[in-house]
Amino acid sequence: MRELILGADVGGSLVKFMVITPTGETVARGDIRTDPLDAERTLTRLAGAVTGQLSAAQGRLTAAGLACAGIVSARTGRLGRSPNIPGWEGADLSGLLAHAFGGLPGAIANDVNAALIGEHWRGAGRGCDDLVMVALGTGVGGAVLLGGRLITGTNDGAGEIGHMVLEREGPLCSCGNRGCLEAYAGEVGLVRRARDLVSEGGASAALVKLVTTSGADLRAAFREAGLRLGQALAAVINLVDPQRIIVGGGVSLAGELILAASREVIQRGVLAAAARETPVVPAELSTHAAALGAAVLARERKEAA
Amino acid sequence: MRELILGADVGGSLVKFMVITPTGETVARGDIRTDPLDAERTLTRLAGAVTGQLSAAQGRLTAAGLACAGIVSARTGRLGRSPNIPGWEGADLSGLLAHAFGGLPGAIANDVNAALIGEHWRGAGRGCDDLVMVALGTGVGGAVLLGGRLITGTNDGAGEIGHMVLEREGPLCSCGNRGCLEAYAGEVGLVRRARDLVSEGGASAALVKLVTTSGADLRAAFREAGLRLGQALAAVINLVDPQRIIVGGGVSLAGELILAASREVIQRGVLAAAARETPVVPAELSTHAAALGAAVLARERKEAA
Repeated sequence: MRELILGADVGGSLVKFMVITPTGETVARGDIRTDPLDAERTLTRLAGAVTGQLSAAQGRLTAAGLACAGIVSARTGRLGRSPNIPGWEGADLSGLLAHAFGGLPGAIANDVNAALIGEHWRGAGRGCDDLVMVALGTGVGGAVLLGGRLITGTNDGAGEIGHMVLEREGPLCSCGNRGCLEAYAGEVGLVRRARDLVSEGGASAALVKLVTTSGADLRAAFREAGLRLGQALAAVINLVDPQRIIVGGGVSLAGELILAASREVIQRGVLAAAARETPVVPAELSTHAAALGAAVLARERKEAA
Repeated sequence: MRELILGADVGGSLVKFMVITPTGETVARGDIRTDPLDAERTLTRLAGAVTGQLSAAQGRLTAAGLACAGIVSARTGRLGRSPNIPGWEGADLSGLLAHAFGGLPGAIANDVNAALIGEHWRGAGRGCDDLVMVALGTGVGGAVLLGGRLITGTNDGAGEIGHMVLEREGPLCSCGNRGCLEAYAGEVGLVRRARDLVSEGGASAALVKLVTTSGADLRAAFREAGLRLGQALAAVINLVDPQRIIVGGGVSLAGELILAASREVIQRGVLAAAARETPVVPAELSTHAAALGAAVLARERKEAA
């Protein structure tokens, strides 16, 4: 009977999952609703949904990986601060995962770390063992892979590119500081910037105007986000000089509107001449990158066991 | 006969060297003048000076390591951009080192990378395999060690913390950009800042005043440098979350004047709560840290051969 591996990615509203073979063939995929207040119930439902999609003929699960938004500690197995799923903070993810899946070997990871593992295996990072990923969403997350190894940090605090301060007196960020990358290039920052460009009116009126106005002002907002992304990425390159930088998340759908501006700043801001050409590329895997990465991490855990 | 290892550190004016046993006992140390235009001649003189200090009874050299200011490529063996020793740019450091020392196994490294290896072995980084070092001198250099491995980068461009842009419209930096850490916390940036604080007069008059004035204004200049250092270090912690950060270089002799201010900003600017307490400590080895580190790297190279 074929060995199969589950990867799941817990977000604020949905848990996306996929079941793969050890060589990466997709056997099943889908999603269920996240219960924002009950991690245990969500994982039990996940187990039910996965079992429902797998017939005995397809094989049996041998490992399960779980990616989750927020600070995930592989050491303690627990979820720390998690702005998207605050009701899960403190949950024993490793224990709940093992419980829901009958004690299978498991792995847990932050969602952007898992997405980078997915992109490394089958996406925009294939063949590169030194990668940095930035995920531009509601917030801005990041992940660092060096020598093929995820850098999670001494206190599980690595990869927080979104909170690099680019301007000490810059716009207020969700974290309480000013001038973070997230305040410029996250969804909230972008909408505020676009609103400033469009009108001085109230928020609702401005948002209507945003949609109906010509694209010119929105392009300016995306360009400014790209210039700030470039300032942060130049610092990242000056610090760890990766082979490639992968940009994902909803805001990255703006594509070259943002990436071209970021490359301009990298050209000027990176010290080592050869590193000024570091490729900055869009993510290739779509919504299931983190689920795939979680499965890859679970497979590695199983093989190491 | 005892096996001995040479480590040397090439700066703009002096080559510092030390000879150690494999267990780290110092057998000899000293320095010679750097010939700013002739790498080969300098290394030949270095070999003479070292031989002169070693009697046959002490042992024989079995490996030689060379640290050098500037971008050092372990892959090509060559020195790239090097603001302190421009006359050496393009020099085949590996070849010249082997030539001067009769083909001994050798290692080359950037000077801050080597200093971090020295601090890791015998200084402020003992027992920690995840370290970042910042060297506050005329310029501002840096080095990153993760999992016990130096991160030199895809293009030998890693560790350039000094050129993180902290303010897009900030003061001009030696690299041509504005608002780099170096422009705030390097010697040149500090002197300019102190001069601004002291007077609007000409540079010479201001420098005289600097020396004769009460310490109050200089303290403000050091504090501002420390706040900017903290902004950069918070970004470094958010990115790689090391166990400890070591601050060295001439400017760091100001000690707590700078370090205390940097810790304030780290407390506010780091996202993961536990990482806000990342120790920021002064370097422990003095002028020969990079020479010691070069010897350690040479020993590793010899053992791997």
